[in-house]
Amino acid sequence: MRIAVFGTGMVGQALAARLAELGHDVMVGTRDVAQALARKAPDSRGTPGFGAWHAGHPKVRVGTLPEAGAHGEILVNATSGSAALEVLRQAGAERLSGKALIDVANPLDFSKGMPPTLSVCNTDSLAEQIQRAFPALKVVKALNTTNASVMANPAAVGDGNHTLFVCGNDAGAKATVTELVHSFGWKDVVDLGDITAARGTEMLLPLWLRLYGVLKTPLFNVKVVR
Amino acid sequence: MRIAVFGTGMVGQALAARLAELGHDVMVGTRDVAQALARKAPDSRGTPGFGAWHAGHPKVRVGTLPEAGAHGEILVNATSGSAALEVLRQAGAERLSGKALIDVANPLDFSKGMPPTLSVCNTDSLAEQIQRAFPALKVVKALNTTNASVMANPAAVGDGNHTLFVCGNDAGAKATVTELVHSFGWKDVVDLGDITAARGTEMLLPLWLRLYGVLKTPLFNVKVVR
Repeated sequence: MRIAVFGTGMVGQALAARLAELGHDVMVGTRDVAQALARKAPDSRGTPGFGAWHAGHPKVRVGTLPEAGAHGEILVNATSGSAALEVLRQAGAERLSGKALIDVANPLDFSKGMPPTLSVCNTDSLAEQIQRAFPALKVVKALNTTNASVMANPAAVGDGNHTLFVCGNDAGAKATVTELVHSFGWKDVVDLGDITAARGTEMLLPLWLRLYGVLKTPLFNVKVVR
Repeated sequence: MRIAVFGTGMVGQALAARLAELGHDVMVGTRDVAQALARKAPDSRGTPGFGAWHAGHPKVRVGTLPEAGAHGEILVNATSGSAALEVLRQAGAERLSGKALIDVANPLDFSKGMPPTLSVCNTDSLAEQIQRAFPALKVVKALNTTNASVMANPAAVGDGNHTLFVCGNDAGAKATVTELVHSFGWKDVVDLGDITAARGTEMLLPLWLRLYGVLKTPLFNVKVVR
């Protein structure tokens, strides 16, 4: 499939690499292609500069936001939560219309210091904001509850014996996304219902961040034991 | 140990029964003892009226809020979140001083319809509100992330192979609570750090409520796979 990944950071890199490895025709969309490819140095968290990463993943196309919006049959929002709406606007609502968008972003607000808080929660969510702003998009919240390397390769933790949550208003888009994440190695995919369930999965982030601090590794995930 | 349980509902009943079964000297504290014991009919969720429940658990003492506050070496907040601060005030700060309080309550706000939202979250939590209002109390947030029957008897789900979170500012109180929950059958108890981590565990509730709806049973829990 032709898949567009918006975002050049850790999550975008991990998902683009995994999707390309699985044989998909992937384009990473970014505001300024030349600038993104010129970034060679790792960031403060050790994520490779996008240019350095891309040198090792030459099959992945790189395009502008409108080019990626036009390319993808499926779209992935791997931006930071605060950038998501503007990136999708620049990609162009008309190019996104009718397509499934996997919303991996979390509305983390780092402006008030650490740990980050959520810029939206409880009575609304980032996924709902995106769905309202782009009504013709089929938003599926998924993969936002794990670290980038776990979401792309769940077998990296506990032989993949843990849970992924999906939610969204369009049953067909959820089925497409569920099939895609099965191909990543996800075994236990729980459909939480409509897009308002994203409140719950985004609100898992404060606990996730605490666990990251306590366990001193991002290589963990929750499993729903029942 | 002498343990006071504030709250006569499903959570208070489950924990009082389990603690008494384990040999502790338990007193349930309630605003109006006669009125509580007069409740025989089950509520809308099928929880027995407190009087009917108590008839089957005669070893559990029942007292006023101040009596329970004086009785307990360890205190359990099993009230609804909205009642917690007022109940503890009525119990009397001077009787609670220096004691460990296991805060099991969640700040669920049902006033705006279903599903409930949280009355406090993201930058604060019910547990922190309690800790601020009663600085001499050693608040330990725990057991709030599961159904009453699971918290009291974790083996009811997946042979007890799932996770309980504790947090609080006092290491001694956390050790006491950890020992107590081990006696319930909890095996994997993760200490998340200080009381601000309660934001994370209380914010798990929206996901918990969705899972309850999807799984159609409250007999589940999350396990942190690492």
